Amino acid sequence: MGQVAWKALFLSLFDYKTEKYVIAKNKKVGVLYRVVQLSILAYLVGWVFVVKKGYQDTDTSLQSSVITKLKGVAFTNTSELGERLWDVADYVIPPQGESVFFVMTNLIVTPNQRQATCPESASIPDALCEEDTDCLEGKAVVAGNGVKTGRCLKDRGSTRGTCEILAWCPVEKRSKPKKPLLGSAENFTVYIKNSIRFPKFKFSKMNVLATDNESYLKSCRYSQEHPYCPIFVLGNIVRWAGGNFQEMASEGGVIGIQIEWNCDLDKAPSECNPHYSFSRLDNKSAETSISSGYNFRFAKYYRDAEGVDYRTLIKAYGIRFDVMVNGKAGKFNIIPTIINISSGLALMGAGAFFCDLVLLYLIKKSNFYRGKKYEEVKSNSRKSLSSPTLNGNQSPDQLDGL
Amino acid sequence: MGQVAWKALFLSLFDYKTEKYVIAKNKKVGVLYRVVQLSILAYLVGWVFVVKKGYQDTDTSLQSSVITKLKGVAFTNTSELGERLWDVADYVIPPQGESVFFVMTNLIVTPNQRQATCPESASIPDALCEEDTDCLEGKAVVAGNGVKTGRCLKDRGSTRGTCEILAWCPVEKRSKPKKPLLGSAENFTVYIKNSIRFPKFKFSKMNVLATDNESYLKSCRYSQEHPYCPIFVLGNIVRWAGGNFQEMASEGGVIGIQIEWNCDLDKAPSECNPHYSFSRLDNKSAETSISSGYNFRFAKYYRDAEGVDYRTLIKAYGIRFDVMVNGKAGKFNIIPTIINISSGLALMGAGAFFCDLVLLYLIKKSNFYRGKKYEEVKSNSRKSLSSPTLNGNQSPDQLDGL
Amino acid sequence: MGQVAWKALFLSLFDYKTEKYVIAKNKKVGVLYRVVQLSILAYLVGWVFVVKKGYQDTDTSLQSSVITKLKGVAFTNTSELGERLWDVADYVIPPQGESVFFVMTNLIVTPNQRQATCPESASIPDALCEEDTDCLEGKAVVAGNGVKTGRCLKDRGSTRGTCEILAWCPVEKRSKPKKPLLGSAENFTVYIKNSIRFPKFKFSKMNVLATDNESYLKSCRYSQEHPYCPIFVLGNIVRWAGGNFQEMASEGGVIGIQIEWNCDLDKAPSECNPHYSFSRLDNKSAETSISSGYNFRFAKYYRDAEGVDYRTLIKAYGIRFDVMVNGKAGKFNIIPTIINISSGLALMGAGAFFCDLVLLYLIKKSNFYRGKKYEEVKSNSRKSLSSPTLNGNQSPDQLDGL
Repeated sequence: MGQVAWKALFLSLFDYKTEKYVIAKNKKVGVLYRVVQLSILAYLVGWVFVVKKGYQDTDTSLQSSVITKLKGVAFTNTSELGERLWDVADYVIPPQGESVFFVMTNLIVTPNQRQATCPESASIPDALCEEDTDCLEGKAVVAGNGVKTGRCLKDRGSTRGTCEILAWCPVEKRSKPKKPLLGSAENFTVYIKNSIRFPKFKFSKMNVLATDNESYLKSCRYSQEHPYCPIFVLGNIVRWAGGNFQEMASEGGVIGIQIEWNCDLDKAPSECNPHYSFSRLDNKSAETSISSGYNFRFAKYYRDAEGVDYRTLIKAYGIRFDVMVNGKAGKFNIIPTIINISSGLALMGAGAFFCDLVLLYLIKKSNFYRGKKYEEVKSNSRKSLSSPTLNGNQSPDQLDGL
Repeated sequence: MGQVAWKALFLSLFDYKTEKYVIAKNKKVGVLYRVVQLSILAYLVGWVFVVKKGYQDTDTSLQSSVITKLKGVAFTNTSELGERLWDVADYVIPPQGESVFFVMTNLIVTPNQRQATCPESASIPDALCEEDTDCLEGKAVVAGNGVKTGRCLKDRGSTRGTCEILAWCPVEKRSKPKKPLLGSAENFTVYIKNSIRFPKFKFSKMNVLATDNESYLKSCRYSQEHPYCPIFVLGNIVRWAGGNFQEMASEGGVIGIQIEWNCDLDKAPSECNPHYSFSRLDNKSAETSISSGYNFRFAKYYRDAEGVDYRTLIKAYGIRFDVMVNGKAGKFNIIPTIINISSGLALMGAGAFFCDLVLLYLIKKSNFYRGKKYEEVKSNSRKSLSSPTLNGNQSPDQLDGL
Repeated sequence: MGQVAWKALFLSLFDYKTEKYVIAKNKKVGVLYRVVQLSILAYLVGWVFVVKKGYQDTDTSLQSSVITKLKGVAFTNTSELGERLWDVADYVIPPQGESVFFVMTNLIVTPNQRQATCPESASIPDALCEEDTDCLEGKAVVAGNGVKTGRCLKDRGSTRGTCEILAWCPVEKRSKPKKPLLGSAENFTVYIKNSIRFPKFKFSKMNVLATDNESYLKSCRYSQEHPYCPIFVLGNIVRWAGGNFQEMASEGGVIGIQIEWNCDLDKAPSECNPHYSFSRLDNKSAETSISSGYNFRFAKYYRDAEGVDYRTLIKAYGIRFDVMVNGKAGKFNIIPTIINISSGLALMGAGAFFCDLVLLYLIKKSNFYRGKKYEEVKSNSRKSLSSPTLNGNQSPDQLDGL
């Protein structure tokens, strides 16, 4: 192109183009359009921004650290163990005070087990036998306590017995006390110290107010009136979770302590506080023994004067507490704000589209407005016939498409 | 302004403005535009909404609780330990049945260690010496077992020896059995009970069907045909993770059991089921002893008749299983739906922009259409010359900018 | 409709409608519009796409597995315990080398506790008494060590004493050494092996380079110059976290080791590396004993020649290290790209709206342009009067609404 053409092109870059509008002085459609606009605005401001905080960027990757500490003692008096006092080192497993801790509430003790051969428990189906050939030597008992030696041991006069096994003998008997031995664990207390951090916003907080004096923290208990005292009575926790402590203590179970931190970081840090909720996590509806309750076996190992290992096997039933911390922080950020505003603007366009439909097709004078809005152009050789001017003389059969 | 002016302004608020359109009866561009529209619609409906479920709000902050329980016994016969039966209390560390558990498959036992002085192991470089001055008293052996006493102990006739140290003596010898001692752990089973909760939607589920009867759960094993039976054979887990159990049992390793819950909460809760996958988490490619395998040392403490502490040190090799639960729930929500629809509408605008380009610049009659679409106005004193009417008489040098 | 009408309707589907534009040759508004366009483009490209990577889909659900291994020995010489060497099996709790591990740095040892009756510690308020009636038989001492027997034990000549309790006797004395017993834990090292996986993108990586040779990993220590050597000296960790090891070792505390993986998966996998940061997680500001520091009690159980249980109670103070892994991976994805581009396009519309305001209301010739942009149509019976043609003859009182 010539120099004049380049200059004209450059100048034309700074022309301002704006759409041409037709003002339809039709009050009905005008009012309808304003109503649609106001609804969209109300949705945008009310729901998206105020309720859902659409102007905020969120951080859901919460980093959390939990320290727990139990306190309490229980006294038991049984024929097996005699008078015994159980303290924290006895019933909390593991003892480190992390976010998951177990409080033993019931147990089956099998003391003085030694490596030897003895009859397997009669309650294990795979160990039932009538003669020696039923017990294949060296084969482990399915869901059992040892490996078979090849002999079937029967009580005098019985036809059925159990296989002899090599195991820690004597094996465990299968009957736990109906009433939980450490039922007074209901009165124990747990002090939960939780420190959280939202990495995206570099915000940290603890659930214990640093200003609390020592005597307050030593004697307070968590309740609705004392939400900033994270010392919980175990019985209360189970009750708030909808359970019954004594029932749960017999079979064992798992309780979840959820600490939720929903913080609006546009407000003061002091308004960012945890919310505690409690729920039962294990399957409470089923009655099957294999899937209800919570128990595990552990052993204490000793050595006798001859240097032979022996152990006390303990099948511990109890309540495991899982402290689960989750949370979400929100802080104003320009990008989600703009995305939500833009969606609102696009919605306005949809509102205009809907009102156009009404104006052009639904009201009485729609033909007239269609003629005004759309200008048909057709490119052909006879220019004089090609351009209908804008007037009211549109014939009904000049249909325009969408 | 006067009262009339205010009234006119108020009435004008309810005028309805709509853009004026030019209908170009050019079938080529019209068809192109319809094709573009249909593609955008197909992308929006097919990809964004159906495949990616763009109409759903998602929750990725899954809360999970895992209970595990191993079953199985292993029989070993070694010169050191004699005939021995290993059961759950012996080989599972820790015993509580949490989401991370370790099954011991190989071990080095150093029994009867007492606090005393003895020569350090010859395999530790920092402890090698030729004379007493090589061993600085009170200095801890780097990567060693104790602190030096200042003496260099050499075998008779040797020139090189190792420093004498104060440690738990005798120190550990560095040779584990090539063949894993508890290799029959391959047949052990683990029962994984997982309970999850999506806090945003307040939806909970377990991976065990409550309707299962006890006998089914006692005898079933997880497989493709039995996806609702979360009892896994350890050998199968390692095999599905791409490993070889006996190889892995010798050096130890870490296996991840991923339980994925991808739930569409617009469907029935019964369609929300976990998906299990298995992978090896530790570094399997390197041959370096420092970074492959998994082992740790622990001790069992005893006290002899004189009241002196002694211990058995166990270097345990084995497979640690990390049960990792993650998931995502989706549920219909109006906000992401509107955001995605709005993006689709804005895309339509981009499609119209593209077709405008074709109409105004690429086709044969483009000059004509440019003249029809753009109406130049220039504000000056002579109004009669300022407004070209809409007709076909655009001169080619009246270029318009974009 | 007749067949002709249907045919006309079908053909009209392929008409192409495009908005009519008015080109205002006003350089000021034109330049303003270009400036607005360029700003929006700069914001979109510079901020949304380059800085915030708005074209990427992100995965924040990181799956992580951590193996830790401590090394180091400490020598102590006290009147209680004599000369003693502490190694890994003695001071690391639990021993399994998981992501949370505790290193004991200070302790109170109460050896040879047996189940018996003895006076409660005088530092427990609930146990103070003057006569037997102050001690209610069977009642547990609040925050104490046992249950009261009903007797008040007073030293000869004293008026105040403490209740006799059934507990593990003798009870613990409340005084820990001012100087941490295992203060040389400052020189211990911990090797942290971390393996991560982003499930959405199926990307895995470890923090140890597989190509490292064994001797490098055995002798290196983490520092700014050696970022790929994850062997940390405990004293350095505490120092980088802003703490003093000896102070912290006395009371105990919790240190967080954050491993952050921020990976741009559009780049090479070798550019995805972890970033380590250290912080103190427990409450350091408060001086209250109940909420500062970190300690727990555990016991070692023994059995004497008569078969009577006895134990050594250890109140362990130390530093708990929580390895917390978090991260975010980004990878190009068409949907967030389109959403952000669409928001940008909608913003352009807002820019045009703003420039329209300037053109129509703020500049000198605004009346003229308003007349050109808006064409009033009013539907009435007299068609000849209903359609003002496009010319410059707009009267000022023909106000148009927004």
